[in-house]
Amino acid sequence: MTSLPRTMVALKKARPAPGLSWSPETPVPVMKPRDVMIGVTHAGICGTDRHIYEWDAWSQARIPVGVTTGHEFVGNVVQVGPAVSRVAVGTRVSAEGHIGCGFCEPCRTGNGHICEKVDIIGIDIDGCFAQFLVVPEENVWPVHPNIPDKVAAILDPLGNAVHTVMAPGVSGRSVLITGVGIIGLMAIGIARAAGAGTILVTDVDRRRLELAKELGADETYLATDPDWPAEVRKRTLNQGPQVWLEMSGHPRAIRDGFKILRNGGTVAMLGLASNPVELDLPNDIIFKGATVLGINGRRMYETWYQMESLLLSGRLRIDPVITHQIDLVDFEKGFKAMQSGEAIKVVMRVPKA
Amino acid sequence: MTSLPRTMVALKKARPAPGLSWSPETPVPVMKPRDVMIGVTHAGICGTDRHIYEWDAWSQARIPVGVTTGHEFVGNVVQVGPAVSRVAVGTRVSAEGHIGCGFCEPCRTGNGHICEKVDIIGIDIDGCFAQFLVVPEENVWPVHPNIPDKVAAILDPLGNAVHTVMAPGVSGRSVLITGVGIIGLMAIGIARAAGAGTILVTDVDRRRLELAKELGADETYLATDPDWPAEVRKRTLNQGPQVWLEMSGHPRAIRDGFKILRNGGTVAMLGLASNPVELDLPNDIIFKGATVLGINGRRMYETWYQMESLLLSGRLRIDPVITHQIDLVDFEKGFKAMQSGEAIKVVMRVPKA
Amino acid sequence: MTSLPRTMVALKKARPAPGLSWSPETPVPVMKPRDVMIGVTHAGICGTDRHIYEWDAWSQARIPVGVTTGHEFVGNVVQVGPAVSRVAVGTRVSAEGHIGCGFCEPCRTGNGHICEKVDIIGIDIDGCFAQFLVVPEENVWPVHPNIPDKVAAILDPLGNAVHTVMAPGVSGRSVLITGVGIIGLMAIGIARAAGAGTILVTDVDRRRLELAKELGADETYLATDPDWPAEVRKRTLNQGPQVWLEMSGHPRAIRDGFKILRNGGTVAMLGLASNPVELDLPNDIIFKGATVLGINGRRMYETWYQMESLLLSGRLRIDPVITHQIDLVDFEKGFKAMQSGEAIKVVMRVPKA
Amino acid sequence: MTSLPRTMVALKKARPAPGLSWSPETPVPVMKPRDVMIGVTHAGICGTDRHIYEWDAWSQARIPVGVTTGHEFVGNVVQVGPAVSRVAVGTRVSAEGHIGCGFCEPCRTGNGHICEKVDIIGIDIDGCFAQFLVVPEENVWPVHPNIPDKVAAILDPLGNAVHTVMAPGVSGRSVLITGVGIIGLMAIGIARAAGAGTILVTDVDRRRLELAKELGADETYLATDPDWPAEVRKRTLNQGPQVWLEMSGHPRAIRDGFKILRNGGTVAMLGLASNPVELDLPNDIIFKGATVLGINGRRMYETWYQMESLLLSGRLRIDPVITHQIDLVDFEKGFKAMQSGEAIKVVMRVPKA
Repeated sequence: MTSLPRTMVALKKARPAPGLSWSPETPVPVMKPRDVMIGVTHAGICGTDRHIYEWDAWSQARIPVGVTTGHEFVGNVVQVGPAVSRVAVGTRVSAEGHIGCGFCEPCRTGNGHICEKVDIIGIDIDGCFAQFLVVPEENVWPVHPNIPDKVAAILDPLGNAVHTVMAPGVSGRSVLITGVGIIGLMAIGIARAAGAGTILVTDVDRRRLELAKELGADETYLATDPDWPAEVRKRTLNQGPQVWLEMSGHPRAIRDGFKILRNGGTVAMLGLASNPVELDLPNDIIFKGATVLGINGRRMYETWYQMESLLLSGRLRIDPVITHQIDLVDFEKGFKAMQSGEAIKVVMRVPKA
Repeated sequence: MTSLPRTMVALKKARPAPGLSWSPETPVPVMKPRDVMIGVTHAGICGTDRHIYEWDAWSQARIPVGVTTGHEFVGNVVQVGPAVSRVAVGTRVSAEGHIGCGFCEPCRTGNGHICEKVDIIGIDIDGCFAQFLVVPEENVWPVHPNIPDKVAAILDPLGNAVHTVMAPGVSGRSVLITGVGIIGLMAIGIARAAGAGTILVTDVDRRRLELAKELGADETYLATDPDWPAEVRKRTLNQGPQVWLEMSGHPRAIRDGFKILRNGGTVAMLGLASNPVELDLPNDIIFKGATVLGINGRRMYETWYQMESLLLSGRLRIDPVITHQIDLVDFEKGFKAMQSGEAIKVVMRVPKA
Repeated sequence: MTSLPRTMVALKKARPAPGLSWSPETPVPVMKPRDVMIGVTHAGICGTDRHIYEWDAWSQARIPVGVTTGHEFVGNVVQVGPAVSRVAVGTRVSAEGHIGCGFCEPCRTGNGHICEKVDIIGIDIDGCFAQFLVVPEENVWPVHPNIPDKVAAILDPLGNAVHTVMAPGVSGRSVLITGVGIIGLMAIGIARAAGAGTILVTDVDRRRLELAKELGADETYLATDPDWPAEVRKRTLNQGPQVWLEMSGHPRAIRDGFKILRNGGTVAMLGLASNPVELDLPNDIIFKGATVLGINGRRMYETWYQMESLLLSGRLRIDPVITHQIDLVDFEKGFKAMQSGEAIKVVMRVPKA
Repeated sequence: MTSLPRTMVALKKARPAPGLSWSPETPVPVMKPRDVMIGVTHAGICGTDRHIYEWDAWSQARIPVGVTTGHEFVGNVVQVGPAVSRVAVGTRVSAEGHIGCGFCEPCRTGNGHICEKVDIIGIDIDGCFAQFLVVPEENVWPVHPNIPDKVAAILDPLGNAVHTVMAPGVSGRSVLITGVGIIGLMAIGIARAAGAGTILVTDVDRRRLELAKELGADETYLATDPDWPAEVRKRTLNQGPQVWLEMSGHPRAIRDGFKILRNGGTVAMLGLASNPVELDLPNDIIFKGATVLGINGRRMYETWYQMESLLLSGRLRIDPVITHQIDLVDFEKGFKAMQSGEAIKVVMRVPKA
């Protein structure tokens, strides 16, 4: 076992204010017997990290000041606790960032992501914008050698997208995606690889709609065009899409989506609305015989296996969404590029300790 | 083939105003080649019939003046069209009241109840509060001899309840029912017969809660008691119910139900809210990993087979909900008994022509 | 309504002996009120037709002498019975060839293909190797204009393949196909379009294995090579395939397949073994936690909608399997080409009456 | 932490010959950091233990001489390893006896029971016919206080039965059970509590058939009566059972069961045939559209939660199957009672160390 340094570089939420702090004297985290110490090599910036960076209302309510941020990463195992038996030092790994209690019904039936006591790395506990990260052995995911680092760094959000696509099932079915931020864009490629029929996409951003086409969308629509629901209906044999992936969190998209969802169709909801949304339950859901699936995180670990299978099949394209690769020290540039809309996904290289 | 009279008794919505008209000179309906003429013997009064009787806003918008009302019934086949091959004169039958187009995807995959062009008897077209009723052969359901007339008369609402219970599946799972009108009450017995674990019920009406216990509820709660959600959580191993059947349509019940539904749980929504309901989608559905199923009508005809199986098993009790059996001529008494809350289900005997 | 000729050309099983008879004086079939008369334009030759042609033991036991053969076709509606309401003269159509009783549980729940009283056109009753064919309106399938005639002529076997692929679900999963006759070959393209991960194929015929690659197989193996099961295991992360489509009916393929199916995997069985097969149930199925699905026909009509969706998506290639297009009068050449192994699928053009 | 004795009483397979050895000087097992030491209080004798006792061919091939036998038990946690965090000393517990590798796809998706590297306590590694037993923390199942010791001692086989019943789903469906050894008998009560419709049972033993009726079977049939399949068909609306639980492992029962299974029905196979069984795959499975589910062990841990829910509902009766409660020292009597057919389930009280 190599000896580790005492301190490391980390990006911390050091103060209850906008920004993150470059913290080169952060103590290396402490391991418990079942923990694994990972030397992080690459980390992705999530929209959630941007919320924390901007210190919005949600962040102020949820984020403990002092925490090391970040939850998307790949790295190498550098040390294992004395009770660790399945993961070896040197293995290239990512990890599921939802740390469940391990003993409740969701945790013991493959649904630790909805454990009532879940801790999320980079949110509730220290995360991966740092040279070292500690996670329980159970959460470690060995990364197949055929998956490159920049992709391995974003398995967390890719897994969100896989979970959203696979929960309703898209094989041979028409799919509408409302909102193509990073997760929506990845969902296009996943839906294509997973056998979707027609894929239709709406968003307010023309550039993202272009990227959507590149990733496999059959047709795209500006969400501000009042005719898009009618167009979507036309493109789906005049019946509406069979599957709808709601990834915008926008009230109008949500209401429009319910209107055109096919009778008997399924919506997987991932996008987070900032405020309560009024639904016309009888017409939107009940008379329509619709199914609504709430999606967050990744099934533990069914989603991870689906993701690996899709990546190794060679049929899933996600490269186009990784628009920026920068060094950790340049993190401010990364956040700015996200704020300007220039960046889709930013992956940061973490310097070796 | 017996010769039929030219006219019959029917209860019609003769004028755009409250009430129904006893119409003894109503022409016997005309058959198309694939239709079956049924001599109605018993008919149930539905809450929807009461809306039509009271001529509320929904009825004014939907009901064509002049229509014969009623959609719950049993009777005997008295004549069949020349293209009918599967139903014989003399057979005791009920019928599925949703007349689908027969050729769209829902109609051809067992989901005619959500056909976009569906007509419902007693609502869009002439119904069963009459001595004779015409339905397509495909909609006819032969009634097993072991099922008594008063039960056979209400297979339509019983089927709604069966559909709601069977869609999420209750076998070995804890069940919350919010709202025990007639369908909610029947759902208790169905859930019990279908293998539910703990069954918990809320309503605003103490008498209905007593009946709920008689039908198999393990515990009942007044919906006006602010502590009921906490009590329900306690009774479900502190995790909330796994299955929730929403049968009230009441905004507060809907909001409370989402709060206590177990993470990963399923709600089957049948109750119709009169107005849009505000939902906190992230907390109610998304973070919870909940599944919401919109339920109406009956699957055609999976639900009917499930219902028959449950009835013939001898384990489904629904007698206690049939509180009134009256003659058709006394229909005003039936509606009054429903309005006063005295009646749960009223079954009317239809006089032979 | 056009007047029809009294007689037509048909290929009949006129005598209990090998061969089919060119029968130009066959009476045009009689319609019942709910029937549709179809002027056949193209018909495919099935392996079953070859069995009938060769008059093997199965045919001798099942086929009524005198029957018009054939069950794969496309044509145009030329007349409809007086009780037909949904299909118009002039529509280009194919049809589901399983004529169920229409009133049993399978028939009324989307499973008419497993009705105990099912009649199959071209087998139990007159089929489509003829200028005219009669089927009940309910069985008619209008063919979308984007689907060309030669493909429309073989929706029946394509549907078998779609049913086999979609029953276990292949989205993002590894798939083994044992046996690539015509249905197995089509299943490759379907599995690819439906989102399969790795597709691995075995057969005894090198030419068919080449075609398998062209249609989307990732790897192919000679079934006579004793190492193929080990190779398949290697190609599936050393765990065996998640889904296995058994389309050979060969005892050794069946036994080998069970050995390498992944624990928890699913096999969809379509191929018909001529004799009983010995299975080691504990090791093949029970300890493995395997699921075995018996597949025949097409779900009525879920499979047809899946097939249409896959065809219209533009991602399903089946052209390469249609190796021969001939005139009906040359049917002997078609059967010979099948017997020699030269033909995969033969489509016959039927002369206008 | 209490100090433990160095040795304990255990029943060991001390020699490669029939019988078990009372071994009072057996060393208390050694714990790894994540292990839990359980002081066993009650243990059930399984049919598998009887095979080991009798030293049949299977045992000779599988059982390592020297192993402590037994895998059904309840006890109290007496010590925990230093890396154990979720289980406290003093908790009354049972445990899942399948120790998976913890890191393969089945293990990480709730299917550790079909891990390719699984070790089973009392078979591959030391078991619970002893005063102390060591299992990994992850396998420990805290037993709810409302579940009595004698039932808690047999959660392992009860879980087999729950898995078999819940895998096909029985809610509102007709069920045939072939073979009512201990697991089959428990399955009757489970199917009843889980909402089965008609439950029909066959066995060769009249006494067990009587017990079957007591536990909730609607009708029972001697398996030697050649008419039972016809009778079963009559009792299931002339269509055959929708669900079949095969718990005999007997070739004739297997063949008869396939013949009468309803078209589209599902069989859950648990019984282990000693030899390969010949199946007529086309008629038994393919044309019938049947589904065959291989069942072993318990889903980890979905089955355990279903079992707890059924037990706590108060609707599952299993007392009648626990026919004998004896002291561990009298184990010979227990095995003899099983051999004579006098005992159904024997539970042994384990003396405190």
